[in-house]
Amino acid sequence: MKIGFIGLGNLGAPIVENLLEKGHALHVYNRTASKAQPLANKGAVVCTSVKELSTICDIVFSVVADDAALNHITQGNDGIAANLKAGGIHISISTVLPATSKHLSEIHQQHNNLYIASPVMGRPEAVRARKLNFIVAGDNSAIAIIKPFLADAGASGIWEFGENVSHANVAKLCSNFLIASAIEALAEGINLAKNSGMDAQQWINMLTQTIFSSSVYINYGNIILKEAYQPPAFSLRLGLKDVNLVMEQAAETNAQMMFGKALQERMHQCVANGLGEYDWTAIALALKEKSVV
Amino acid sequence: MKIGFIGLGNLGAPIVENLLEKGHALHVYNRTASKAQPLANKGAVVCTSVKELSTICDIVFSVVADDAALNHITQGNDGIAANLKAGGIHISISTVLPATSKHLSEIHQQHNNLYIASPVMGRPEAVRARKLNFIVAGDNSAIAIIKPFLADAGASGIWEFGENVSHANVAKLCSNFLIASAIEALAEGINLAKNSGMDAQQWINMLTQTIFSSSVYINYGNIILKEAYQPPAFSLRLGLKDVNLVMEQAAETNAQMMFGKALQERMHQCVANGLGEYDWTAIALALKEKSVV
Repeated sequence: MKIGFIGLGNLGAPIVENLLEKGHALHVYNRTASKAQPLANKGAVVCTSVKELSTICDIVFSVVADDAALNHITQGNDGIAANLKAGGIHISISTVLPATSKHLSEIHQQHNNLYIASPVMGRPEAVRARKLNFIVAGDNSAIAIIKPFLADAGASGIWEFGENVSHANVAKLCSNFLIASAIEALAEGINLAKNSGMDAQQWINMLTQTIFSSSVYINYGNIILKEAYQPPAFSLRLGLKDVNLVMEQAAETNAQMMFGKALQERMHQCVANGLGEYDWTAIALALKEKSVV
Repeated sequence: MKIGFIGLGNLGAPIVENLLEKGHALHVYNRTASKAQPLANKGAVVCTSVKELSTICDIVFSVVADDAALNHITQGNDGIAANLKAGGIHISISTVLPATSKHLSEIHQQHNNLYIASPVMGRPEAVRARKLNFIVAGDNSAIAIIKPFLADAGASGIWEFGENVSHANVAKLCSNFLIASAIEALAEGINLAKNSGMDAQQWINMLTQTIFSSSVYINYGNIILKEAYQPPAFSLRLGLKDVNLVMEQAAETNAQMMFGKALQERMHQCVANGLGEYDWTAIALALKEKSVV
């Protein structure tokens, strides 16, 4: 089977490297063509358009920045759906609205091919360590076909959420909301500990060996303690984008989100203050009396 | 050494049982005397006043409801400090303000005995499972003396935060703030997942096996999913008390706490709505469109 990959950014590029390492022949496309060159050097075939790539491939991965970009590459005469062969599978890794997945899945059905929502949990270092968790939903037989490819892409976990594609996106948005909340809570707790004259590192060490012994608290706690906000593994700008999606889904489903709203305002303010290309843990900087930027 | 124990509530009573099981002779006191009877049946000697108990014992544990209660039993002619022998040790397990610990430690010093701040992480079921984590600060030699008693009381971990007693209380308040934040975030995430038509249990199962694989998310996630808010393992009333202390410490140290403030308002509202004696996870009920109470 011929595999295509659209979107060669922070996540896409190392996932492509993982697939190449496992011996897959890959066709790749990126809007900014220069990003494809390092992968071409490792054996990927560079396509000049989404249409060209989609015509050639049986399975097309996409990782793009937002709902608009995903709509753009999927819909229309030059899009993935219209050019992928019958029975072909589009694996959409991007974090987008549940309604976007539902809509694009219907468009794929009209072209007799398939859309699988497969958002991923894991920062770039997790791609390289092959510790990604894919959250998948869509047609069961298509999922059975793609699972070995997700494994080769770097999955340590593949979590199936049924045939309704939108449920994978709901799970991903809810997960990112929990991470963002944990970051803000860690930032406020560490700041209170420091302002109280205590060794905040010692406190985090205790917590992450006891009741908060999970990767989110270990990793983000350490980033905030070290103030290691650059380079961003996941930018504040993209974090705000995701929290905006969370709040859009909350409005859509009439769900109260007090923390969600507070996070949205904080992140919006941080981006306005010039922190958009810092890691999203840099929301901790908002707690300092004077802005550092 | 003679061991005393003041405060035989949700936490105190099972800790006393642990100490009795390990063969310690115990003197106990509780303001509401009837709570001492089950422990007397297991061999504890019941005292009729704090003063009587403090005069008899070498080490006095206390677990009381709040700063006022701790001040009351510690200070004055009938208090622990004035009646404990020279070199005696008061182990204060209550969650109180750092400034309260500092003040009471000074009073103990005036009476040539010692105050150790030793707030504890763990709900009643953790006491019985001997999985408590004590956060201790104070005089080093006194801590060396009490560690075997903390172990017998049910410690799986004893975390030392130096000689400044207030630091143990800071660590405890910051920890409780992180737990309360995780509860609210879980509640909002689970509510959004449900409102979006998804299986929220499946989502929590994924998270607690991946990036949130810690006891706080496992335990509180399941309580919220099951809406198992009664009986309370830790009441919303006491949760609000702790968040009030967090915000008092934040004001004292000029620390911004956006989530802390939101939690304080939410919990205050929940207690006003009659949820004070529900488990503190019942803040999730505030997300339902109509109050259940």
